[in-house]
Amino acid sequence: MTALDERQPPRRQRSGAGATVWLTGLPSAGKTTLATALAARLRADGVTGVELLDGDEVREFLSKGLGFSREDRDTNVLRIGWVAATLAKHGVLVLASVISPYADTRAGVRALHEERGAGFVEIHVATPVEVCSERDVKGLYAKQRSGELSGLTGVDAPYEPPAHPAAVVRTQDQTLDESVDQLHAVLVAHGLLP
Amino acid sequence: MTALDERQPPRRQRSGAGATVWLTGLPSAGKTTLATALAARLRADGVTGVELLDGDEVREFLSKGLGFSREDRDTNVLRIGWVAATLAKHGVLVLASVISPYADTRAGVRALHEERGAGFVEIHVATPVEVCSERDVKGLYAKQRSGELSGLTGVDAPYEPPAHPAAVVRTQDQTLDESVDQLHAVLVAHGLLP
Repeated sequence: MTALDERQPPRRQRSGAGATVWLTGLPSAGKTTLATALAARLRADGVTGVELLDGDEVREFLSKGLGFSREDRDTNVLRIGWVAATLAKHGVLVLASVISPYADTRAGVRALHEERGAGFVEIHVATPVEVCSERDVKGLYAKQRSGELSGLTGVDAPYEPPAHPAAVVRTQDQTLDESVDQLHAVLVAHGLLP
Repeated sequence: MTALDERQPPRRQRSGAGATVWLTGLPSAGKTTLATALAARLRADGVTGVELLDGDEVREFLSKGLGFSREDRDTNVLRIGWVAATLAKHGVLVLASVISPYADTRAGVRALHEERGAGFVEIHVATPVEVCSERDVKGLYAKQRSGELSGLTGVDAPYEPPAHPAAVVRTQDQTLDESVDQLHAVLVAHGLLP
């Protein structure tokens, strides 16, 4: 027989303050990898009340039907931002990975959080385009080179880096564990983790 | 000088269990009026962790660009349902007013909640079409009559009433206060209110 506390981590209830950790950066910069690894670390630590807004579910439920025009991109970013802010308002720690290339649209997302008394921590996953293009997780850079696709952020569409991010993560210079450590420390410094 | 507890209601923290109260019914059935009045009652009672998913914000952030085809309606209903389920998973009591005419789409929303261990309470705001058409809050019934609009739920587009709703609210037979009392009692019976 194993005692309960040997099998499960203690549940560490975060305080009531909700916030969104907004990971912005180029395609294949490592935003999703980083958010997923941080979520796993928090889960292993028994931290509850964390939500990952990213990937297939967001594409299926929130982004369906949207394309890559400036207007559609903005709609998508603000929509994810609105969902994040609504969750954060209720005390959830949201990890959102969104390319979100335009500074003023990200400012709009920040404003949605401020209006709701929720925190907003902007993280620049600043992997250079050369490294992203080599990783090319979804084959987008290859498609752009072959002419199958245009409007790729950072190549033939703009990316406006954050002027004052809470952290700049250089995934090309450190291991994933080190990037998770860096992000974890930022959240602790912002009072978002117990 | 007024003591704090005379000016503010005591905060009544709901238990950790989140759920969505899903109000379905025809246009002008009174779904929004009812959800708003219930939210006000809960606020007055000091109940925290309640979110109204309804109206302008949902239209601006979630439903933008969607029309009235069966596919677009389903996308809209499932999108609102997904947001509701994600909030409810984190303990929020969500009040969602959505026409949601199709039974199997509502079943899809219920499934999203069950997958997340969140409650789902379906309420049929069952105001008859004659009464809705007379109220015509947004002028939709008049537009349908004049031919400006087609595909109006309950008139020339289907509405499939819930087979087993947690409650049927007959707004034509009782006051708003009585409808709020009815809904409040259902939530207490489901263990969703302290």
